[in-house]
Amino acid sequence: MPDDVAGFAELDLGRTARRGYPEAVYCAGKSPGQVGAIAAAVRARPDLVTLFTRAGPEHAAAVLHELPDAHHDADAALLAWPPRPPEPAGGLVVVVAAGTSDLPVAREALQTARYLGRRTELIVDVGVAGLHRVLARLDDLRRARVVVVAAGMDGALPSVVAGLVAVPVVALPTSVGYGAAFGGLAPLLAMLNACAPGVAVVNIDNGYGAGHLAAQIAAPAPAGDA
Amino acid sequence: MPDDVAGFAELDLGRTARRGYPEAVYCAGKSPGQVGAIAAAVRARPDLVTLFTRAGPEHAAAVLHELPDAHHDADAALLAWPPRPPEPAGGLVVVVAAGTSDLPVAREALQTARYLGRRTELIVDVGVAGLHRVLARLDDLRRARVVVVAAGMDGALPSVVAGLVAVPVVALPTSVGYGAAFGGLAPLLAMLNACAPGVAVVNIDNGYGAGHLAAQIAAPAPAGDA
Amino acid sequence: MPDDVAGFAELDLGRTARRGYPEAVYCAGKSPGQVGAIAAAVRARPDLVTLFTRAGPEHAAAVLHELPDAHHDADAALLAWPPRPPEPAGGLVVVVAAGTSDLPVAREALQTARYLGRRTELIVDVGVAGLHRVLARLDDLRRARVVVVAAGMDGALPSVVAGLVAVPVVALPTSVGYGAAFGGLAPLLAMLNACAPGVAVVNIDNGYGAGHLAAQIAAPAPAGDA
Amino acid sequence: MPDDVAGFAELDLGRTARRGYPEAVYCAGKSPGQVGAIAAAVRARPDLVTLFTRAGPEHAAAVLHELPDAHHDADAALLAWPPRPPEPAGGLVVVVAAGTSDLPVAREALQTARYLGRRTELIVDVGVAGLHRVLARLDDLRRARVVVVAAGMDGALPSVVAGLVAVPVVALPTSVGYGAAFGGLAPLLAMLNACAPGVAVVNIDNGYGAGHLAAQIAAPAPAGDA
Amino acid sequence: MPDDVAGFAELDLGRTARRGYPEAVYCAGKSPGQVGAIAAAVRARPDLVTLFTRAGPEHAAAVLHELPDAHHDADAALLAWPPRPPEPAGGLVVVVAAGTSDLPVAREALQTARYLGRRTELIVDVGVAGLHRVLARLDDLRRARVVVVAAGMDGALPSVVAGLVAVPVVALPTSVGYGAAFGGLAPLLAMLNACAPGVAVVNIDNGYGAGHLAAQIAAPAPAGDA
Amino acid sequence: MPDDVAGFAELDLGRTARRGYPEAVYCAGKSPGQVGAIAAAVRARPDLVTLFTRAGPEHAAAVLHELPDAHHDADAALLAWPPRPPEPAGGLVVVVAAGTSDLPVAREALQTARYLGRRTELIVDVGVAGLHRVLARLDDLRRARVVVVAAGMDGALPSVVAGLVAVPVVALPTSVGYGAAFGGLAPLLAMLNACAPGVAVVNIDNGYGAGHLAAQIAAPAPAGDA
Amino acid sequence: MPDDVAGFAELDLGRTARRGYPEAVYCAGKSPGQVGAIAAAVRARPDLVTLFTRAGPEHAAAVLHELPDAHHDADAALLAWPPRPPEPAGGLVVVVAAGTSDLPVAREALQTARYLGRRTELIVDVGVAGLHRVLARLDDLRRARVVVVAAGMDGALPSVVAGLVAVPVVALPTSVGYGAAFGGLAPLLAMLNACAPGVAVVNIDNGYGAGHLAAQIAAPAPAGDA
Amino acid sequence: MPDDVAGFAELDLGRTARRGYPEAVYCAGKSPGQVGAIAAAVRARPDLVTLFTRAGPEHAAAVLHELPDAHHDADAALLAWPPRPPEPAGGLVVVVAAGTSDLPVAREALQTARYLGRRTELIVDVGVAGLHRVLARLDDLRRARVVVVAAGMDGALPSVVAGLVAVPVVALPTSVGYGAAFGGLAPLLAMLNACAPGVAVVNIDNGYGAGHLAAQIAAPAPAGDA
Repeated sequence: MPDDVAGFAELDLGRTARRGYPEAVYCAGKSPGQVGAIAAAVRARPDLVTLFTRAGPEHAAAVLHELPDAHHDADAALLAWPPRPPEPAGGLVVVVAAGTSDLPVAREALQTARYLGRRTELIVDVGVAGLHRVLARLDDLRRARVVVVAAGMDGALPSVVAGLVAVPVVALPTSVGYGAAFGGLAPLLAMLNACAPGVAVVNIDNGYGAGHLAAQIAAPAPAGDA
Repeated sequence: MPDDVAGFAELDLGRTARRGYPEAVYCAGKSPGQVGAIAAAVRARPDLVTLFTRAGPEHAAAVLHELPDAHHDADAALLAWPPRPPEPAGGLVVVVAAGTSDLPVAREALQTARYLGRRTELIVDVGVAGLHRVLARLDDLRRARVVVVAAGMDGALPSVVAGLVAVPVVALPTSVGYGAAFGGLAPLLAMLNACAPGVAVVNIDNGYGAGHLAAQIAAPAPAGDA
Repeated sequence: MPDDVAGFAELDLGRTARRGYPEAVYCAGKSPGQVGAIAAAVRARPDLVTLFTRAGPEHAAAVLHELPDAHHDADAALLAWPPRPPEPAGGLVVVVAAGTSDLPVAREALQTARYLGRRTELIVDVGVAGLHRVLARLDDLRRARVVVVAAGMDGALPSVVAGLVAVPVVALPTSVGYGAAFGGLAPLLAMLNACAPGVAVVNIDNGYGAGHLAAQIAAPAPAGDA
Repeated sequence: MPDDVAGFAELDLGRTARRGYPEAVYCAGKSPGQVGAIAAAVRARPDLVTLFTRAGPEHAAAVLHELPDAHHDADAALLAWPPRPPEPAGGLVVVVAAGTSDLPVAREALQTARYLGRRTELIVDVGVAGLHRVLARLDDLRRARVVVVAAGMDGALPSVVAGLVAVPVVALPTSVGYGAAFGGLAPLLAMLNACAPGVAVVNIDNGYGAGHLAAQIAAPAPAGDA
Repeated sequence: MPDDVAGFAELDLGRTARRGYPEAVYCAGKSPGQVGAIAAAVRARPDLVTLFTRAGPEHAAAVLHELPDAHHDADAALLAWPPRPPEPAGGLVVVVAAGTSDLPVAREALQTARYLGRRTELIVDVGVAGLHRVLARLDDLRRARVVVVAAGMDGALPSVVAGLVAVPVVALPTSVGYGAAFGGLAPLLAMLNACAPGVAVVNIDNGYGAGHLAAQIAAPAPAGDA
Repeated sequence: MPDDVAGFAELDLGRTARRGYPEAVYCAGKSPGQVGAIAAAVRARPDLVTLFTRAGPEHAAAVLHELPDAHHDADAALLAWPPRPPEPAGGLVVVVAAGTSDLPVAREALQTARYLGRRTELIVDVGVAGLHRVLARLDDLRRARVVVVAAGMDGALPSVVAGLVAVPVVALPTSVGYGAAFGGLAPLLAMLNACAPGVAVVNIDNGYGAGHLAAQIAAPAPAGDA
Repeated sequence: MPDDVAGFAELDLGRTARRGYPEAVYCAGKSPGQVGAIAAAVRARPDLVTLFTRAGPEHAAAVLHELPDAHHDADAALLAWPPRPPEPAGGLVVVVAAGTSDLPVAREALQTARYLGRRTELIVDVGVAGLHRVLARLDDLRRARVVVVAAGMDGALPSVVAGLVAVPVVALPTSVGYGAAFGGLAPLLAMLNACAPGVAVVNIDNGYGAGHLAAQIAAPAPAGDA
Repeated sequence: MPDDVAGFAELDLGRTARRGYPEAVYCAGKSPGQVGAIAAAVRARPDLVTLFTRAGPEHAAAVLHELPDAHHDADAALLAWPPRPPEPAGGLVVVVAAGTSDLPVAREALQTARYLGRRTELIVDVGVAGLHRVLARLDDLRRARVVVVAAGMDGALPSVVAGLVAVPVVALPTSVGYGAAFGGLAPLLAMLNACAPGVAVVNIDNGYGAGHLAAQIAAPAPAGDA
């Protein structure tokens, strides 16, 4: 571990070897200075993909100061370095945003899956209030190895999608909605209670977690599988 | 008020005149003896419809002892007297049960609407995990003046139905489901956050309330309406 | 769908045909730029009413830039276009605000019902702490086909009003109140537990939903009703 | 302290001297044997009033074995010894039960106030769904020095009563109601958020606490008051 | 009602006659303009005491513009007009603040009781972590007709005080504390569960409600009391 | 649909064709009679696997009366028919039970995955209080295509396992634990907040859902995957 | 591990060596047969102390069948084997039960500490409603190296005790109380928010955890301490 | 008590004598002026250690104006005076921060323990997602007399650490994490449900409380201990 992050972080650079996926840097609880120091520390390892998630403007500036060519998706509050994602392998990850307000979180999921080595597609604004919209995209959904569905409010879309496809659905609740959504609690509970089986729930607004899980589900099958 | 209910109940026999709908007797918190005394008291008023809701076997026996010809729907835990519902008026009330386990509560709603003077129809087991089932009943749904949808688990069906019809949907959450349904909290929140407008939510497992509200919505329009 | 909203929204312009009511644009989770692009897209459809709800000052400016003659009710955080509401039909919608602090949400409900084609009336500051105030308005309440009641704090007014009228009451909880109101949870629960039947609950501070539901309840009865 | 309660209880026999009110024995968490031993211990102190609250049938039998002339109100799950309440002093305590199901808890409050030395009156089944019932009892309410209001469901009655009288209202939430009453949480929150000031809230189903508080409020004014 | 508040408020100027206590103006949900208009409207009634509660700096300025001699207690976020409280009557109200952080809410309670006509005293920083502090003030507490106890964190002080005095304790939970205080939920629940009877709980941070209730409890006894 | 289930259930016999997995019959909310009728209805379709979950003794008897050779795992409260699971395909599903009390739910997951066509292995009693136990099974864990981890109490084991393997972990919270586990809420929240990515959460005690999701994740990769 | 517990439990017999304290067997989620098999398995290790906690009558019978001389404290629902506790070392553990209803949990804590090798003392029924009771036991409290305080309801006693002694207080919330105690949530939150520092909170009704923690705190100081 | 803090604070300067530990000044709810006045008041007592916790920049400036040589740890939002901690005694306190974002709270715990007279060590970024990191520090952990573990998210680390050491673990939940961490509720519940005994839980983000408790646990054993 480089000396300049000692005292506040213990980078897990061996994680790619151990788990097959690199570590991400969750910026929200760190100062821009700490994030910048980590960015400097990973510069020596272009063989690993490093994601900086929940990166506000000051975090992004600190990263870009150290890694000027990092890819920055401001809507998703995410940076990736090296900027070019790995050559895709495994199955297709389709990311669905129920409404426009769910897009930032959906994009975080999509970028994460992409930088972890998967092909990705995005479908937007297909909430259950107009079923014809999701039914119109059935062919796209059925080409996926896993579908990520980001939804706030009633969180009903993952149930509906899971009832239409054979593959797992990663349900990503968002904090979008009126008062009784309680910051995402309503869609979270709805997704945990999905009446269609095959729904894998992650934390509220946790696009990174959803994308990571989707990438693992869609990973190339190991040799030993039947 | 008859003397023999004095001390524990103040029957609101004028309610039909005042509100247009009779009072119901909620049995759950009353002793069989109290329920029986109320049944005896209403015997003198066959001009009013009296519903006994949440009536367990002992409550039902106490009612039937006083009103032997009362209609008893044991699945719905409900008795009605006089046994014959009024001649139907107003629009059609369609009651939908998402799953078999939601049937008792759905039946309570249906019987309530029927004894308050509406035509009713029942549709069962059309949860969103198999959308083709609800889509196959679209014509039935579109003939309704109001649709009651009873659902537990993810509570997603009212959103889906509301997106398909022009009339109001009364959303009736049930306490059916695994642990994180938290006794009906999950579908309740989902219904309050329905992404399709036009959803009227009532209390968990409150079939009586749902049926009453539906009867009011489907009531014959007063003369003054345009 | 116009090209310039592709990528973040899928306008449901067929919704009026399908459901009889137009789609609304919920601005809170969208950027002013996105809202402006949607405003531009609907300009070609003056035959449809479009509502922009939860519109902050920047959202409003973006809409007015594209649709300068849109009606803007800043208190209700709502814009409507075309500015002139449709000719009213169906029954009267009476909107009641329990206290002055409930007015913005109550106005959102009223404007929604009005732009969906209903006659509306507003009654303000008639909380249950002074019953004489609501009793004094009984005649106004009894002329309604549906009453919307916006209330925070104890959320007691919908119960009281529902006990006084024959028509449905749409209960609209607001986030007004001291600490243990928990952002509207207290009135929401009170309304769900209303001891008078005939109460239809919507989400906290969701004036749009309340107005939409009221408009549907007060809609002209279809030909087939008895 | 008598030896035979040593090991599980430390009777506070000096409490009447210190606080002016005797200790009560909460039976719910104690074995019948423990309750009986306490009953035996207080037999030597007929100068103190002892209340046994939340006494199930076995607790009651154990008390009556030791104190055969104790007064037993089975509905209120309460025993009092000596059986004759003290000569009443101070103001009148009026206890109101919103519905029949609230009666047991209301009776516990009434008996407690009576055995602590107050005059009491009971009013039953005057919920806000039929306002005329509570308005018809206004004269009775206005003679009180304090009103205890027991209500479940929406918990709206204390707000309404507090808006009609000058004296404090003790709000006693009960666990009566459908699912979203959440065991009394809904009326508890409603009462804490009462829009009329002058409402003193106690614990759910805690009739003893409500009666005790009411007795204190209605106590004879000390000499020093203006 | 003066014309210039029509449209947003219905002043209850008859409340003093009806209930014996004047109405207060809760500023938090109102605009400074609305509050100013109400201030102007009450100027014609110096015979009534008007309290403006939860008044931020802009609310205060709006009131003082209309009623320049109003009494302003900025710590308590409260204004009173006319500035001179009524001649005190009834018993003494003692207000206790468990810690320094509870002082603003405690002062709101004290000012309310004072302007409703009671003598008041304040005791500060006597939390249960140092019992000697509250025991040292026992004589002061025992002179009261009612004690208001404002406390955050564990909310333990009302239980302790109620165990030491014969009169009712108004328990006023505050939102002071670390994370698991959950905005005052922890002391609120503790107070509702006070193991000493005689505790009357009000809403979190609701100093006005606590002071009003205390004033009613300590009111001069009506003629009819024994 | 056979006539004898009409009225309470709409069997989705086409689901295997549509989604690739058969429907399961959730017995908990159904009467033994209803479950028996469904069992009779599926007897004509030995080409489909039918699972009966949450089957109490009476449900099991009703199933076995119709399908005497059904496989019954009483610990898992599950029956399967036809009794012989399909020939396994895809990757290995390893099911881990953190403690002995988590075994019934873990077995439900294992049986579900097995009857949906996967190879399965069970590891028991390897909670994080003794890390050496889980570390000793690392080789077994690393042969899996997906790991299901059932845990109550602190729900920490999925985080630990996810940090040790490359494949997804299905986190299955159980309702095992002391009071503040709140019926499984504590492990549910812990799993949603797992600090290691790659954790897919399902509902509390929902072994069926966990096993179904695991079977989908470990399904043979479709031809199109890279 | 003996063969006969294979399949459902992995005994951690090395735990005494590793952690210095033996493993306990939590019976609540296990069948009597499983508990009996574990009892048989530990019979070969009389050098280790084994505790069986939350043992109902059937669990106890199963243990006593295998280990007839085991010590059985039925009130505490606990068995210990070998029956004689180790020779005490370290500091004194004082266990305080706020009320009689808290005794079973307090006894579980006391027995656990005793069988882990500490001297113990029990103090009962010293709740804060009568402060003189706890103040009278101050000398006993001050001889302790750690005090365990079991309390339900307002959970105020740990704060009070922690303010009186120099040593840590283990706060053990119990599920004793009226409705708004919410199964121990109220005292749990109060204890977490104790205004006196030095309070270590454990799970609701977890007497075993409290006793174990107390035993560790009062353990003989290792050689290296200053 | 100095005059200039009268009116808002009652300093407990005798607390060191009574409890062995000095009082701390919780700044969050106090104005800078109040904090400064307290700082001035303690200047006369350099024999006592005074900690100012939760001190924002303005609080810190006010303290430093009165006590210019006070030690200020801005990351921990804490000041100490006199600046030099007492000579350490008792056992070692090891403070562990699961992640970088937990560092501020962990530092508050460490500084508190240090100024209360203990030796301290800090270990950072050893979350359970990479078990090798915590296992690598086992020797450091085993030298402690008590370990403080600060963790957000799943709160799993205290369970893991408690399973590895013989001494008590003080579990300090932090408010770090995605939506369903609910401001620290998730790790708080996980820690209360730790499957390893020996875990003492404190309030969310309450580093001061954790450090104080740890200092008490690691205090020199009194003479009387065996």
